[in-house]
Amino acid sequence: MIVLFNDFGFNGPYLGQMKAVIWQQAPELPIIDLFADAPVHNPHASAYLLASYSEAFPEGTVFLAVVDPGVGSQQREPAIVLANKRWYVGPDNGLFNVIATHHPDLQAWHVRWQPEQLSASFHGRDLFAPLAVKLAKGDQLPEGAVAETDLEKWPADLNEVIYIDHFGNLITGIRAVSLAKDESVRIGEVPIPRVRTFSDVPPGTPLCYENANGLLEVAVNQGSAADYFRVVIGESVYVLA
Amino acid sequence: MIVLFNDFGFNGPYLGQMKAVIWQQAPELPIIDLFADAPVHNPHASAYLLASYSEAFPEGTVFLAVVDPGVGSQQREPAIVLANKRWYVGPDNGLFNVIATHHPDLQAWHVRWQPEQLSASFHGRDLFAPLAVKLAKGDQLPEGAVAETDLEKWPADLNEVIYIDHFGNLITGIRAVSLAKDESVRIGEVPIPRVRTFSDVPPGTPLCYENANGLLEVAVNQGSAADYFRVVIGESVYVLA
Amino acid sequence: MIVLFNDFGFNGPYLGQMKAVIWQQAPELPIIDLFADAPVHNPHASAYLLASYSEAFPEGTVFLAVVDPGVGSQQREPAIVLANKRWYVGPDNGLFNVIATHHPDLQAWHVRWQPEQLSASFHGRDLFAPLAVKLAKGDQLPEGAVAETDLEKWPADLNEVIYIDHFGNLITGIRAVSLAKDESVRIGEVPIPRVRTFSDVPPGTPLCYENANGLLEVAVNQGSAADYFRVVIGESVYVLA
Repeated sequence: MIVLFNDFGFNGPYLGQMKAVIWQQAPELPIIDLFADAPVHNPHASAYLLASYSEAFPEGTVFLAVVDPGVGSQQREPAIVLANKRWYVGPDNGLFNVIATHHPDLQAWHVRWQPEQLSASFHGRDLFAPLAVKLAKGDQLPEGAVAETDLEKWPADLNEVIYIDHFGNLITGIRAVSLAKDESVRIGEVPIPRVRTFSDVPPGTPLCYENANGLLEVAVNQGSAADYFRVVIGESVYVLA
Repeated sequence: MIVLFNDFGFNGPYLGQMKAVIWQQAPELPIIDLFADAPVHNPHASAYLLASYSEAFPEGTVFLAVVDPGVGSQQREPAIVLANKRWYVGPDNGLFNVIATHHPDLQAWHVRWQPEQLSASFHGRDLFAPLAVKLAKGDQLPEGAVAETDLEKWPADLNEVIYIDHFGNLITGIRAVSLAKDESVRIGEVPIPRVRTFSDVPPGTPLCYENANGLLEVAVNQGSAADYFRVVIGESVYVLA
Repeated sequence: MIVLFNDFGFNGPYLGQMKAVIWQQAPELPIIDLFADAPVHNPHASAYLLASYSEAFPEGTVFLAVVDPGVGSQQREPAIVLANKRWYVGPDNGLFNVIATHHPDLQAWHVRWQPEQLSASFHGRDLFAPLAVKLAKGDQLPEGAVAETDLEKWPADLNEVIYIDHFGNLITGIRAVSLAKDESVRIGEVPIPRVRTFSDVPPGTPLCYENANGLLEVAVNQGSAADYFRVVIGESVYVLA
């Protein structure tokens, strides 16, 4: 299975063009869109999403992960990461640095291989998708893979809003396991009660809870926390004892 | 075929996570997204959409239908419905009550089965998707299915805007067959001519017509009825003799 | 492979309904979404997108292309086009007129065939999708196909913004090959430096470059050109010597 994680947007041609490349090279491989709206130009917040949302996929899954503001520059190397029996392919710009924290025994490589046709602005299609296919087909590491032992490790939690979903729920970079059972958070000066699910508070009221992937999430029962708190990605979230 | 109907949004990880569950359990099953932007937290309007848009799918189709503001609470039971040889799986919170009106001979069950891992906030992935797979594979009803004979029936038509599409067209809950051939509607005080297709009125002019699924729809030729009327889901639509 | 190009929006039921029709008639055919957000009601700008983004797909690809403000009227004929060994199906309303310019030896047909059930407003599902399946399965031309030798040809370049992507990048209808290597463009009075990729200018600065499909594209490094220039589709783009 190839799982797509990127900031390209569901709109536009980019996902379709990547999928066409994958399909031509490996028509039998299922392709799943996980995030196409990861925080734009933001490998930092994206790294926390990727680390939390990739673990539930089965062993052998290949994550084609592209949040790549430095595309086409010498600023970052293409990377392959093997962590907890899952493969990750994408730019080495921080995107894999939280996975590195969770899995200190991971293996990583930089990739010097270049495809015949490499555009300056769409390495997702031209470089990373073919690499993902190679890995998903069980091939060897691609030519030009050079072991990289210095992948940076970032803190395991990020006390910020890292994603805002269709309901206006605010996903934070704080893992619920990092808090004591009775610890909660505030945004600005507003303390937020910690509960199990939405309907544990009245409609229109804020709450926080461990979401279905282990992250602390701030919501409003039957409403939008994004409207309620008027925040954007990067807003600070403070832990309350 | 499994058809997805929900209010999760195409953005974000939720559709991908549900599809990954389905694919792992039944890689051969095609999955079709019907609505991922059903009216948010609104099983009432959603019930009319689901009833109108599901009939055109072939017999044996399984609809995984999740508009579920009460997720994780004791407020609603998980349900399975068999109507007109199509299966429906989702929360019994009204979502199937218009199907019940159209098909008074339907069969319904509440489901007491619980998966090993059940999050408090994402029953679409953890509970309803596995149930949908069981039905789609032709298995028996799942363990814990208890016949439910009291599914509520709602009126067959809802004189409101129930969905606004990408063009700004306003889908109403009124079936065209419920009106006489020369009956039309108004929104606010604006009467809207009833025609066959968009170009039957000049560009920029409102019209209403029987849409491709049998519902009365309000549009503006080469424009946006949502902008023209400045309405949202729930706006009243009045029948004009 | 069937590639979908339309202005229906990823939201809403339309893509799913088309895919269900295709899947029922040809379950083995892969379906790729290229654009579901082509310029709304705008076959003119769409024709330039389609011509530029279809060439990279393999021979034999069938493009199901529907930007069709005149749907259900006598204003346009359903058409099939064969150009450079790729098939195109959709309304003859200009959508194929740039492909005609690039491939003066193309073959085109108007289609008089009508399906048993033809709604007035959704020929993508009822008429064009079944035609696309016929072609993708390698069948003969459908009954009712009448050679059409007078497909209009439009200029090869359009000096306008034709699409704005998720990043706020402005795709123009100008092919990079139409400019000299040192030629650039301006929007309004702002001249835009021509470079190879985003990071060739400082963050927050506009640039233009040959995008990954050969079109000149205007962007802002790590920012949004749509916000920077405050433009919409149709904005003029002027060539600077």
